Amino acid sequence: MATSTTKTGAPLDRATFESLLRRRLFYTPAFEIYGGEKGLFDYGPPGCALQNNLVDIWRKHFVLEEDMLEVDCTQITPAAVFKTSGHVDKFADWMCKDPKSGEIFRADHLVEQVLEARLKGDKEARGQTVEIDQAKDAKRKKKKVKDVQAVQLDDAVVKEYEETLAKIDNYGGEELGQLIKKFDIKSPETGVDLEPPRAFNLMFQLTIGPSASTPNGYLRPETAQGQFLNFQKLLEFNQQSMPFASASVGKSFRNEISPRSGLLRVREFLMAEIEHFVDPESGKRHPRFAQVKDTKMTLLNRNVQLEGSTKAEELTIGEAVASKLVDNETLGYFLARIQMFLLRLGVDYSKLRFRQHMANEMAHYAADCWDAELRTSLGWIECVGCADRSAYDLTVHRNKTGASLFVRETRAEPLKIEEYQVDIDKKRFGPKFKKDAKAVEQAVEALSQELREKMSLELEKEGRITLDVPAVGNGKVELEKDLVKIEKRTRVEHVREYTPNVIEPSFGIGRILYSLIEHVYWSRPEDDARGVLSFPPPVAPTKVLLVPLSGSDDLRPYLQQLTYKLRRMGISSKIDDSSASIGKRYSRNDELGTPLGITVDFQTVKDNTVTLRDRDTTSQVRASEDEICAAAKAIVDGEETWEDVAKRLPKFEGQEVD
Amino acid sequence: MATSTTKTGAPLDRATFESLLRRRLFYTPAFEIYGGEKGLFDYGPPGCALQNNLVDIWRKHFVLEEDMLEVDCTQITPAAVFKTSGHVDKFADWMCKDPKSGEIFRADHLVEQVLEARLKGDKEARGQTVEIDQAKDAKRKKKKVKDVQAVQLDDAVVKEYEETLAKIDNYGGEELGQLIKKFDIKSPETGVDLEPPRAFNLMFQLTIGPSASTPNGYLRPETAQGQFLNFQKLLEFNQQSMPFASASVGKSFRNEISPRSGLLRVREFLMAEIEHFVDPESGKRHPRFAQVKDTKMTLLNRNVQLEGSTKAEELTIGEAVASKLVDNETLGYFLARIQMFLLRLGVDYSKLRFRQHMANEMAHYAADCWDAELRTSLGWIECVGCADRSAYDLTVHRNKTGASLFVRETRAEPLKIEEYQVDIDKKRFGPKFKKDAKAVEQAVEALSQELREKMSLELEKEGRITLDVPAVGNGKVELEKDLVKIEKRTRVEHVREYTPNVIEPSFGIGRILYSLIEHVYWSRPEDDARGVLSFPPPVAPTKVLLVPLSGSDDLRPYLQQLTYKLRRMGISSKIDDSSASIGKRYSRNDELGTPLGITVDFQTVKDNTVTLRDRDTTSQVRASEDEICAAAKAIVDGEETWEDVAKRLPKFEGQEVD
Repeated sequence: MATSTTKTGAPLDRATFESLLRRRLFYTPAFEIYGGEKGLFDYGPPGCALQNNLVDIWRKHFVLEEDMLEVDCTQITPAAVFKTSGHVDKFADWMCKDPKSGEIFRADHLVEQVLEARLKGDKEARGQTVEIDQAKDAKRKKKKVKDVQAVQLDDAVVKEYEETLAKIDNYGGEELGQLIKKFDIKSPETGVDLEPPRAFNLMFQLTIGPSASTPNGYLRPETAQGQFLNFQKLLEFNQQSMPFASASVGKSFRNEISPRSGLLRVREFLMAEIEHFVDPESGKRHPRFAQVKDTKMTLLNRNVQLEGSTKAEELTIGEAVASKLVDNETLGYFLARIQMFLLRLGVDYSKLRFRQHMANEMAHYAADCWDAELRTSLGWIECVGCADRSAYDLTVHRNKTGASLFVRETRAEPLKIEEYQVDIDKKRFGPKFKKDAKAVEQAVEALSQELREKMSLELEKEGRITLDVPAVGNGKVELEKDLVKIEKRTRVEHVREYTPNVIEPSFGIGRILYSLIEHVYWSRPEDDARGVLSFPPPVAPTKVLLVPLSGSDDLRPYLQQLTYKLRRMGISSKIDDSSASIGKRYSRNDELGTPLGITVDFQTVKDNTVTLRDRDTTSQVRASEDEICAAAKAIVDGEETWEDVAKRLPKFEGQEVD
Repeated sequence: MATSTTKTGAPLDRATFESLLRRRLFYTPAFEIYGGEKGLFDYGPPGCALQNNLVDIWRKHFVLEEDMLEVDCTQITPAAVFKTSGHVDKFADWMCKDPKSGEIFRADHLVEQVLEARLKGDKEARGQTVEIDQAKDAKRKKKKVKDVQAVQLDDAVVKEYEETLAKIDNYGGEELGQLIKKFDIKSPETGVDLEPPRAFNLMFQLTIGPSASTPNGYLRPETAQGQFLNFQKLLEFNQQSMPFASASVGKSFRNEISPRSGLLRVREFLMAEIEHFVDPESGKRHPRFAQVKDTKMTLLNRNVQLEGSTKAEELTIGEAVASKLVDNETLGYFLARIQMFLLRLGVDYSKLRFRQHMANEMAHYAADCWDAELRTSLGWIECVGCADRSAYDLTVHRNKTGASLFVRETRAEPLKIEEYQVDIDKKRFGPKFKKDAKAVEQAVEALSQELREKMSLELEKEGRITLDVPAVGNGKVELEKDLVKIEKRTRVEHVREYTPNVIEPSFGIGRILYSLIEHVYWSRPEDDARGVLSFPPPVAPTKVLLVPLSGSDDLRPYLQQLTYKLRRMGISSKIDDSSASIGKRYSRNDELGTPLGITVDFQTVKDNTVTLRDRDTTSQVRASEDEICAAAKAIVDGEETWEDVAKRLPKFEGQEVD
């Protein structure tokens, strides 16, 4: 893996980057004053505003644009639901215990880290330049993976390690145990043999109500189940019209064995999920697919990965669906829409790929699955999953509860079915068979189409047929043609019943947020200790910084008026009237990603003009307060760019800095 | 309590009202297909949109308007935090167990229900009209409170019951136990004596991580603690400037003993909380209090309640603060702002009151507390709490962890403190006292100002003083004036250190949402089976309904174009092209609270005009598509009312309905 880069292509220094996130309180380890709690993070004001903006844009891009039915279901869930869905049995990771120290390791992560360390040692021994992957290095140190030694490996071993790593997500518990033995992986803690991998269920258990003596519920690990359980009500709300999608934004929970990598593997996280319900017999075609079919995307397919490679190819989604690499139009439509969403947030296209899941890697319910992955200094991060869950969930819940989780649809064209039908002459049947009449009748009705065809010919030819009816007499019953008639006729079916399939785009908001910040991060060549976060204006936590040139009381009313005016225009602003120099105040807000700055100075008092500063270029224009507010609005709404505004309004070069 | 009424003053029929909420999927019992789980509700599309709008308006009204620092903290919380905050020990309700059936009752609710039933029986016996309180009636039936019998009570007993009910929230476990004995309350299930009240902690416990063998965490019962724990970071983010407020919107959890009343007592709920940190020495004055001081409010003070009455009085908040009924300006400011928020949502002023907590009713941390209560068919519902938590939380967490949860402030004017200071001649001290020197020195330093003053006189007069130093020799040490000097001097203090007090407005979004729907609900005299929800346009789940007059393909492009145009203006719309009549489609959307409807008809195809319909009056105007869209925007943004629009644009009386 190549070294990670900033927005401008310079090497990304993780320490500097992380110091910015801490300094500006984007997020912070939760409960730090209590020694912290692994895998839990709090969002500070800029992180929280950024998260709100991502959710808001998500709602506009998906829910409003596609008329989805947004619901908000509870996080606490009775155990029976996850028993049915399969999560109680299967939603687990594999963990190995060090029998000496009691420490617990996640099996796949351990194998991955040890093999990577050995490959690195091999490269060193061969005198090759070792790319420093800071994140993995830090992880290794933390986990005390001891064997980063310059030991050369056989070429065959190197190849085997590399192939194992490419497939690491594809192994189950038993296979991981075999790999640990085969590669002689010991506890990084104590060097002893680890216990064999054991499944650890990732759901948090809890007890609902005062009278239960044992846990009877879970915190949901995904928002999906609540949407499935309400399917019938949503279909009715949608006036029985198919296809439709439900959507939900909310917290989910996974009791990770060893949380790591900041926001990327946490125990509580915000998800945004869509469940698009579609008729499986429609071929999963999508009416708006034509609108997206020329979208170019970087796709990494499953076969390439199974060969041990990570080489992706760029295709249009139209080509991918046509070649069946992506299974159907609906899945393809959502992959394209997911990409548009990510790009709208400011994600770097060159650091985005869609990776297909390998068979064993997929969740137990999925028929096909693609992840949108974003490249960061911590590697490729799965940020959005897009799975075809088939009819799995609706079927299992329907089977368990008997609820009508299906669609009854009046056929536009009634379906004509040619079939053999049986008529019984009941008046004669009763007197003839007496108490056996019912059993014989049932045996006749139960005849398959194939047998009916055969018997209809027999009746015509022989005038009688012989039937197996085990419950009656010697098990054989003879029927003459005055008792029964079998004819080929046409039946007309007006209503069709089916269980919809589900396409599920599922967004990890925290992972997107973290990766996005890396993608928009850079620093000015003249000041590389300070960063700049170039969020697109609609995404930025705050849109406009208001700075008075001095602390003079004369300037204050102008700031208040600007705040009020901008708020009425729906633009969030912050005043920084601290005593720091203008330059320092702007730098601080470059790190917060504030796209625009308005300076109020003594000229303002004279002629009511103010300056507007662009975060990315640091250039400024000067105009009347009204013109500047209008320009800010145009930029924040995405109707003009800075370049447009800079062409229209007079450049300003005065008032510099510290 | 008088019978509950609709927006137009007609009696509110709960069955009809609830059937509307179910029919339109505002919310629904969660996990219904699994038999349901008490106290958990899912929001369907209109409820979810309404909730999102409430939160959005809340953010604008509080967070943006007052520049609060919004954070998002985790729901999962380590046990140590709630141990310190007092929740592990004190956050409990009192429950009584029926020893025969095992059923559990919440003690205060049981007393309340039984006394109310007896009072009702008394009224019946006296031949008085009994107001039917449907909700309480339903509760009683459910809980099988058997003794609603027409039995007349002594006048003194009636008085005692009424006084007990007025103070019901003021009783602890022991007192509830005494009331149960005194009033001879038995298990409504079996008629046997109940076990004495036992505390049941309302927090959900859980186990974080794979290695803990017992629960080590809780789901938070309020969002506040996360804000307190981050106080130091937030103060720094705010550039050390005080006062400031943090804010948070998120789920909280209470494992209620017996959830009831739909959304009003649930186990998982959305809260929006503000923690306003203020210098206690500022007198808790508020710079913007003058802006709100003339706000009239309905206040029910604590003393009136302790006298067994519920008579509220209307005052301006300025009067209430001046008379110390409301303790301070900051508390008063927030009470007024809370009222403005609720009125902005569409709450009925005549069904809003602020009730002061009685001493025993307050949470363990509160110094004073007022609830905004909304009147509904289920009684007065506490929807917003506004507590003065004093310095309680920051102090206990600081004491426990040693974290700097306080403010260090450079004094504008350095403080001059007159005090007695002690100088020790260390050169002589050591040789004289040898190994005891330290202990003697400490004893001198520890002298109070009072003793110092006394000893300074003694030193002057006698030339020596005698000190108690228990650890040295016989416990007395004599010091001559060459060893020690005590003088009155002036010390200048430049920095002040203090723990802020906290004013906490805390909003139960679900309760507000439910009560609001009751307040805006009414039905047209000509069609009382169907309801209308008159949400103010910014609050309404969907703003505009688009209806084609017929299913003709000619009309479809106009609907698409309108959708697109409205979306660009930031207005959510829905198309209803179902086959129902225009009238039915409008009725459906009256029940969803959609304020505006645009009809596309064959005239549209000719001249591009459409009609705009007002939900509340059902009157319509007709104009060009652009004019209608602009009018819709003005109404949705609150810049024009329907009356304004109806004056400007030509009335339309055609196209009616069936």
